[in-house]
Amino acid sequence: MFGGNGLCSLRWDEASERVEVIDQTALPHQLRWIALNTLDDYCHAITEMQVRGAPLIGITAGFGLAHAIAQDASDAALDAAHQRLLSTRPTAVNLRWALQQVSSAVRLLDPALRPDTALQTAQRLRAEDIASCERIGSHGLMLLQGLARGETLNVMTHCNAGWLATVQWGTALAPIYKAHSEGIPVHVWVSETRPRNQGMHLTAWELQSAGVPFTVVADNSCGQLMQQGMVDCVIVGSDRTAANGDVCNKIGTYLKALAARASDIPFYVALPASTIDWQCPRGEEIPIEERGVSEVLAVSGADIDGAIREVKLVADGVAAHNPAFDVTPAALVAALITEHGVFQANTESLHALQSQLDVV
Amino acid sequence: MFGGNGLCSLRWDEASERVEVIDQTALPHQLRWIALNTLDDYCHAITEMQVRGAPLIGITAGFGLAHAIAQDASDAALDAAHQRLLSTRPTAVNLRWALQQVSSAVRLLDPALRPDTALQTAQRLRAEDIASCERIGSHGLMLLQGLARGETLNVMTHCNAGWLATVQWGTALAPIYKAHSEGIPVHVWVSETRPRNQGMHLTAWELQSAGVPFTVVADNSCGQLMQQGMVDCVIVGSDRTAANGDVCNKIGTYLKALAARASDIPFYVALPASTIDWQCPRGEEIPIEERGVSEVLAVSGADIDGAIREVKLVADGVAAHNPAFDVTPAALVAALITEHGVFQANTESLHALQSQLDVV
Repeated sequence: MFGGNGLCSLRWDEASERVEVIDQTALPHQLRWIALNTLDDYCHAITEMQVRGAPLIGITAGFGLAHAIAQDASDAALDAAHQRLLSTRPTAVNLRWALQQVSSAVRLLDPALRPDTALQTAQRLRAEDIASCERIGSHGLMLLQGLARGETLNVMTHCNAGWLATVQWGTALAPIYKAHSEGIPVHVWVSETRPRNQGMHLTAWELQSAGVPFTVVADNSCGQLMQQGMVDCVIVGSDRTAANGDVCNKIGTYLKALAARASDIPFYVALPASTIDWQCPRGEEIPIEERGVSEVLAVSGADIDGAIREVKLVADGVAAHNPAFDVTPAALVAALITEHGVFQANTESLHALQSQLDVV
Repeated sequence: MFGGNGLCSLRWDEASERVEVIDQTALPHQLRWIALNTLDDYCHAITEMQVRGAPLIGITAGFGLAHAIAQDASDAALDAAHQRLLSTRPTAVNLRWALQQVSSAVRLLDPALRPDTALQTAQRLRAEDIASCERIGSHGLMLLQGLARGETLNVMTHCNAGWLATVQWGTALAPIYKAHSEGIPVHVWVSETRPRNQGMHLTAWELQSAGVPFTVVADNSCGQLMQQGMVDCVIVGSDRTAANGDVCNKIGTYLKALAARASDIPFYVALPASTIDWQCPRGEEIPIEERGVSEVLAVSGADIDGAIREVKLVADGVAAHNPAFDVTPAALVAALITEHGVFQANTESLHALQSQLDVV
């Protein structure tokens, strides 16, 4: 069990037969569980980023499709729910992958048999995600052990690729949790991750809860920390990785990869194989979600009385641009850490991984 | 007169014989002038960043020293006020330079003659800064004219190096204002500049007031904009530039310089010669100010009722690190735009500039 505390981002409540998720928009100020009772609830939770992180988006959508099938198991309803969930967010490929897993599992079945199979498939995806992340942690741990010199090992991360972005463990944070458990003196540089501050809101909260030492910095500080020798490696997650190893991840990831290269620091990407889009040859073909400009022009936080408030940073009438992701060229990536092992970020190496998956 | 509107960041009020400055911590929500009545007021205004920007810090300190001399023109009082003002902020070298200008001007005079000379010297520094920035604008304009192709010219900047950072015109924004006046269709990418958001709070306000088209983006977006061919050049200011051309500027500048190099985009630095520290051989010897962590962990903005509020972004007990500046290696700088012309960022070229200054 992760960290001994059993925390997870999404759970199935047997009594109500409903999925419950942590509302991540309320963190770090409140730990609030919400029940997903309707397909609308599922779509809203994904669109509004109450759940986020490529693996968790996929699993949530899988349960959402199972929920829709339980209401109406016809082909038409299945297709409509599938399409609706698929359109919630454009970049994370795990969404498409998980929906396909559930749809394929039930498509050839008699409608009467579909609800149970769909739910079991969603449950299996959830269980597999936990197991995958645990293995990502083990593979990443070996890399960290190779870098550890007895002194504090300084790992930089971006956004949140912890257990909140998956179900348990996380991707980028899984090796860090493993290293911490193993007694490696690890310290994490947490970049705040504007505009939505997932580093500050989510990663800091996760690490604080787990007792892992960390320091929050503005995204702008990350280059200087690397110049000054304060970073031993960078580990981030991915929302979609192309078949050539180009990595799409939270906006700002590319700048960290450039700085890591300039200071000769290994830049790792931790991801389940379900995040690799085998149909996408290059990063530039990945659709980049453009989100509302209020994410840039206003910020939410806790007021002095503890109430969550949004404050506006600019005068009225200011234009903004808010892409949610960027693409880091494969050439800047030292390695991809997957549940199947550590792979180089290039077409040949990923082809080998794909062959391995086909055999399985 | 700049922009035809006569706005400036610091003015001498003849009636009260006091300096008045715009309180930049209240922008963009309120345009509030404050009078500096005591040496404490001057020090507080600089430390708390009511005035900021290397040139404006220097000029404010020059008037502060003149104010102190008007109260007590003895050697001991002069030295004490000089030291006190010098210790307000460590990085901007214009502070040291301006204080030296005023001190040197009065040091050999009879104390009775010191107050008038000190004030005249501060007034001269202010007038020279306006003239220098105007010339920086003209030299930079030539570079922008060279890049202009009739279509929109997209210039990225960081932090605020506009007239709020100087007295009028600005450094990095001066060429942009000139280009806009000349009818070149210029558009500015304004990076928000966490943690204090000077891009969002100050540069956006300046450009909006002047009618220059611009778009605000998170600092994290700047690499992607360059990858996508949306940026024709980057122009930033500097708080201190070493004799070898290494540029110290607002934290996050280095990441933009790396991204500009990766996408083959010219990265310019606009600065008066007073920002060059001839005694400092390399950027790594420049002292970097570490500011309070609340700048990272909380954000101020306007609430729905227009009141300025600070909201907290993290749970209690979270550690942060908040360096105010970073150093961009000279090799990443396409050119330094000064009031004396455009120079390459290297020791030889800056030596030529220094020789030119010595002759003057």
